[in-house]
Amino acid sequence: MSEAPLIGAIEAGGTKMVCAVGRTWREVREGPTHVVATTTPDETMTRVLDWFASRHALTPLRAIGVASFGPIDFDADAIASTTPKEQWRGFRWRQAIAARFGDLPLGYDTDTDAAGVAEWRWGAARGREVSVYVTVGTGIGGGLVVGGVPVHGLLHPELGHMFVPRQAGDDFAGTCPSHGDCLEGLASGEAITRRWRRAGPELGADHPAWELESSYLALAVVNIALIASPQIIVLGGGVAAADGLLDRVRDKVRTAVNGYLPREELRGDVAHYLVAPGLGSSSGVVGAFALGQRALDTSLAPSA
Amino acid sequence: MSEAPLIGAIEAGGTKMVCAVGRTWREVREGPTHVVATTTPDETMTRVLDWFASRHALTPLRAIGVASFGPIDFDADAIASTTPKEQWRGFRWRQAIAARFGDLPLGYDTDTDAAGVAEWRWGAARGREVSVYVTVGTGIGGGLVVGGVPVHGLLHPELGHMFVPRQAGDDFAGTCPSHGDCLEGLASGEAITRRWRRAGPELGADHPAWELESSYLALAVVNIALIASPQIIVLGGGVAAADGLLDRVRDKVRTAVNGYLPREELRGDVAHYLVAPGLGSSSGVVGAFALGQRALDTSLAPSA
Repeated sequence: MSEAPLIGAIEAGGTKMVCAVGRTWREVREGPTHVVATTTPDETMTRVLDWFASRHALTPLRAIGVASFGPIDFDADAIASTTPKEQWRGFRWRQAIAARFGDLPLGYDTDTDAAGVAEWRWGAARGREVSVYVTVGTGIGGGLVVGGVPVHGLLHPELGHMFVPRQAGDDFAGTCPSHGDCLEGLASGEAITRRWRRAGPELGADHPAWELESSYLALAVVNIALIASPQIIVLGGGVAAADGLLDRVRDKVRTAVNGYLPREELRGDVAHYLVAPGLGSSSGVVGAFALGQRALDTSLAPSA
Repeated sequence: MSEAPLIGAIEAGGTKMVCAVGRTWREVREGPTHVVATTTPDETMTRVLDWFASRHALTPLRAIGVASFGPIDFDADAIASTTPKEQWRGFRWRQAIAARFGDLPLGYDTDTDAAGVAEWRWGAARGREVSVYVTVGTGIGGGLVVGGVPVHGLLHPELGHMFVPRQAGDDFAGTCPSHGDCLEGLASGEAITRRWRRAGPELGADHPAWELESSYLALAVVNIALIASPQIIVLGGGVAAADGLLDRVRDKVRTAVNGYLPREELRGDVAHYLVAPGLGSSSGVVGAFALGQRALDTSLAPSA
């Protein structure tokens, strides 16, 4: 068997860019990464692309995949004007990569769509016709994957901004600049920090923050289950990984659904419906690898 | 060109079954229908199938399509045990049709999935890769259609039961037997009737009911847009057809999204994003026709 092609993978987050190369998803997941702080596009991209160029000089990359923060406007081929990262508004991945790597095949999508694809191919959602990946970190986002393909539709899912009922007694205004008390405004890592004046990791496991957090995440999971009908929901991100939180959310999901959807997955402990990422915290960069691989395959496919 | 095959179509609702036959969707939409009250399965199905048998005797049907109330458990090939229509729990469409029509190709799906397919093929959502059909009548339901195919996933969407924030001052308990104040519990036709002690059509256009109703429906539309990212949402059903309601919902959708999704469709009057059914109140029975047609095509396709 001939050696698989070498793929470059960029997980482009709002605070850092994680860069890796590999011939398989395991190499990308387990191999060394190059991490660059996300500052201005010029500065950041110079550092990112210098590193890929040095790797390319050793062994040519065959494609690059990018899992990027969003929103992304695929029609305009650019990061959307509504991203809170002002300097990156209108940034064009295709142009930036082409300036250094010419017509090297490029695949790019949102970080959450990419993570959803990675979890579908190699992680917790393997083989499911319909799956949703949700990440709860500084912000909240997610991707809907149908038949292995991330659903874009109008733009792409921005499920972190859905509206859910407030819990009784909660009068926190919410942190979302666009919506105030949407889900992200009430339950993101940023919301936890501002609500309790301490970051999530500094709050004890018995802090009331987690009861509230699990209630909001459960409502979000139920709304996703009812609207998109995924066979599995993967809940990732730093906040979602807090001790015991996933089990609390599962309990509340079962209670909220109240048996209405006649499916074993939503009864009992809900442990096979709402799951942690199979790829741990690597779903994003592995997803970028998957996008690069798909871009290469597409470039090699005979034209219709 | 040879004559198209004759297809039987059943829109199976909780109060009545609408039966039609036709060779094209226009014939089904515009031709005569046979309407049977939904009572017990035995009584209802005898009347429904007697009528189709009499048509079949004149000109043989080549397939039957059923757009049925739900939930439907496709794995069990039966109406789910959680349907509020107790006598129909476990009812098997395939078995009932086969008892009279043998192996005549049968396509069946939920009424809302069928309507979604009809709107995608011949109605307001023509050619959209991702679309959602929502109906607001006695209850609230919807279907998600991706690439022309209704997404089933875990079961099928049951989006009427999503949870949305209560409007300030609204302390109505909600009517949903399973969830109390889910969307259906707060905003279905049933909820309107019980909240205001008069049915929707008896309330004047300036009644406060419509302000509240449009607020809840707008939140539902926004949650659907954020989670499933459809390019268009078709809002059907008797309640949604109330004078001026659609425009009110559009206004509130635009306000709630607040520019976050950088798409023209969600700015201005939102009139190209949230739309009335292109097939009017015929989406369901025309959808049943589409399901029958697809079942026939599938039965004729060469086996792999």
